[in-house]
Amino acid sequence: MYELKDILYASSIAVVGASGKPGKMGHTLLSNIIEGGFEGAIYPINPKEETLLGLSCYKTLCDVDGPIDLIVVCVPAKFVPGTLREAGEKGVKGAIIISGGFREIGNEELEKEVADIAGEYGIRIIGPNCQGVNYTANKMCATWPVVKTQGAIGLVTQSGTIGAEIELLAEKEGIGVTCFAALGNKLDVTEVDFINFFVEDPNVKVIALNIEGIAENSGFVEAVKEAAKKKPVVVLKPGRTAQGQIAIASHTKSIAGNDELFTVFCKKYGIIRANDITEMYDACKLAAMMPKPANNKLLVMTSSGGSGILATDTAAENGVEISPLPDFITQPLADVLPDQCVIKNPMDVTGDATADRYGAAAEVICENIDKLGYGTLLMIFGDPIPGAAQVVAGIKNLGQISLMVSYLGGGTVQEKEVDEMQALGVPSFPTPERAVKALSHLLVTK
Amino acid sequence: MYELKDILYASSIAVVGASGKPGKMGHTLLSNIIEGGFEGAIYPINPKEETLLGLSCYKTLCDVDGPIDLIVVCVPAKFVPGTLREAGEKGVKGAIIISGGFREIGNEELEKEVADIAGEYGIRIIGPNCQGVNYTANKMCATWPVVKTQGAIGLVTQSGTIGAEIELLAEKEGIGVTCFAALGNKLDVTEVDFINFFVEDPNVKVIALNIEGIAENSGFVEAVKEAAKKKPVVVLKPGRTAQGQIAIASHTKSIAGNDELFTVFCKKYGIIRANDITEMYDACKLAAMMPKPANNKLLVMTSSGGSGILATDTAAENGVEISPLPDFITQPLADVLPDQCVIKNPMDVTGDATADRYGAAAEVICENIDKLGYGTLLMIFGDPIPGAAQVVAGIKNLGQISLMVSYLGGGTVQEKEVDEMQALGVPSFPTPERAVKALSHLLVTK
Repeated sequence: MYELKDILYASSIAVVGASGKPGKMGHTLLSNIIEGGFEGAIYPINPKEETLLGLSCYKTLCDVDGPIDLIVVCVPAKFVPGTLREAGEKGVKGAIIISGGFREIGNEELEKEVADIAGEYGIRIIGPNCQGVNYTANKMCATWPVVKTQGAIGLVTQSGTIGAEIELLAEKEGIGVTCFAALGNKLDVTEVDFINFFVEDPNVKVIALNIEGIAENSGFVEAVKEAAKKKPVVVLKPGRTAQGQIAIASHTKSIAGNDELFTVFCKKYGIIRANDITEMYDACKLAAMMPKPANNKLLVMTSSGGSGILATDTAAENGVEISPLPDFITQPLADVLPDQCVIKNPMDVTGDATADRYGAAAEVICENIDKLGYGTLLMIFGDPIPGAAQVVAGIKNLGQISLMVSYLGGGTVQEKEVDEMQALGVPSFPTPERAVKALSHLLVTK
Repeated sequence: MYELKDILYASSIAVVGASGKPGKMGHTLLSNIIEGGFEGAIYPINPKEETLLGLSCYKTLCDVDGPIDLIVVCVPAKFVPGTLREAGEKGVKGAIIISGGFREIGNEELEKEVADIAGEYGIRIIGPNCQGVNYTANKMCATWPVVKTQGAIGLVTQSGTIGAEIELLAEKEGIGVTCFAALGNKLDVTEVDFINFFVEDPNVKVIALNIEGIAENSGFVEAVKEAAKKKPVVVLKPGRTAQGQIAIASHTKSIAGNDELFTVFCKKYGIIRANDITEMYDACKLAAMMPKPANNKLLVMTSSGGSGILATDTAAENGVEISPLPDFITQPLADVLPDQCVIKNPMDVTGDATADRYGAAAEVICENIDKLGYGTLLMIFGDPIPGAAQVVAGIKNLGQISLMVSYLGGGTVQEKEVDEMQALGVPSFPTPERAVKALSHLLVTK
């Protein structure tokens, strides 16, 4: 029996049903594997073509001279068993079956036949009826869309679209993912295989799951419990409402299960339960960029009093403590801040604050961090404030406190500064509420 | 006594304390009024300069030959009373006082002096200690940042930064605002003046408020009640928690008031209560782009089953009904959809859906809309799906149902299609949860 790592670290791939026609699955997959920068051998398989996208095309798998580790299958369902048998004879280790037309439309028998052949040859299967896999550490984009930025998020998802959105957001912010895997019918490889792989994968800092149900005896509960001891785990599991559970049943025939039980389970084992796509992304991003802070005490420094209040409400509602600033620090801060500043928590450096004013205050904080006892510093920049990123970089290098940013109301200056901050490894969020919510999520992890 | 409209429709503006040095308030304001495209006369006032940013500069207000409707004041606080007296003699109708250094730092007396002079001459005051006003219908950007896109959102805000963020988001999506007003110390003009103005302003379709407290006898409660009968009103009022209320007291010395009372008040009068900046923006955007649907029944059409489930959970939690698809429509839909589609609500047109498949199904829906009884159709596009905007435009022209879109997982294709949809007047949201939440907000309005 081959293993998941044989798929993810394939050094040669054949696309069965490769096509030259844009819009066809066999074109999308071949094209994306090439565009994704895969460095091993790529073999398009199509009996009717000589070359495809600049590569020599082969009539069958057996016509390929060298070894083939992985096949990506795009042919109609009825041709899949034959393809797999041929793959078995060829010594293929894994198959990603993109093609639909199996269990999801009632063809249980055909799916069983595929499973039997795979079992016979020890081939591992992802899918069928799936959106495939992107493993950036091997530059293997056997899916869509093309996302190339390597990062620390290990993502396995029931919904291809939800996963793709997370992956695209991560790419847009320069964070990237280690892996995107959309599992489809899960004939063989399940979330459990990926979770276990991600736990050991040094590229992965945070494990992200979108699931619709938990199959009996699947080992999911044990795997996720163990994983959460080692790395932050973020779960987006819809079906919180009766209506949502009905929708799940008609989508993947999964049983959503009792939502309250799942909530209790997550709480007990320090698993982050995201309520929506935005929360899922924000939690993944923060966990990928920042270790869990030493405690739940948060110091907020802001040029926007209103934003500080929004942060305060969100903190109070989510178990983050905006604890009062100790008296001993008032004078040292007053020495570096103008009179109109409010030296409390939130600390209001007021609307005319420059980046340097933030820097001066943050330096005083960091020099006294042991006595102050804050685990996290959230710097909220309202208005353009050029130079913010450079100041943040200086603070980050002091290294005594977990540093987060929220930047808003700053237009084009903001876009540039945020890009710089993200590149420096400082997580930046578009609203104070999203920043604090993400922090509250990271704090529940073990 | 002059009126707020004399400020907003000023045809001549003097910037007192105008400066040629970037970074100075007097530079920012002068520069932004010019860049905003103001079409009336602009007079920089600075005794030390001959010209500023290409305009003739004047030593005093009285040196200007023509009339001056509005002054924007950027001089230090101690010079403000003298400036106002001169303005009164000159016949100025309104003043936006950007300068700080009044009540907010304990200078109650100076603020009182300014109020007395303004009262003597009938000059209306916005501020002091404020971020100013952008009234796009008069191309008057007496604030920062520069936002020029005209739109249907009338925004008055305690926090300049929160307001600026809403304004920037609206500009980025091509929606724009009618007005942004950040009130500062509210010596004279308050939210009430703006609310009453927005109710009558034909440019404004939705009134957006960020407030921290409700002053006694301010008329706020009456004004907002009356406004909500005529136009959707969205309120972001932090201070939901005890900690948030303390932060408010130290920011604007406002009394946040009992949050539960405010929630009940909003509910009774159909006022939208946004919990965070994102909800505020989404509610404003939807109300600006779509009239209130006929009822709370929502039909979801999606290529992403997982996204449909997220929409379903959010709907069930927020009073939106995803009611079952009536039987009579099953066959007509089956006639235009492939076998693998799930003809229910949510309707899953499945992952290989093209824009045309959405169009065919939506056409069947729209032809039968009276019998189906749905108030809103939410089309969720997962994956790239080129041509989606054109199909959506066709559906919109059928005009029988409120139409919303959520588009995700589509990368660069998505960006192009979403821009097109927004330009066509179809509101598009980046996640299904945000779309449904915004709909639930619009449904509470009268």
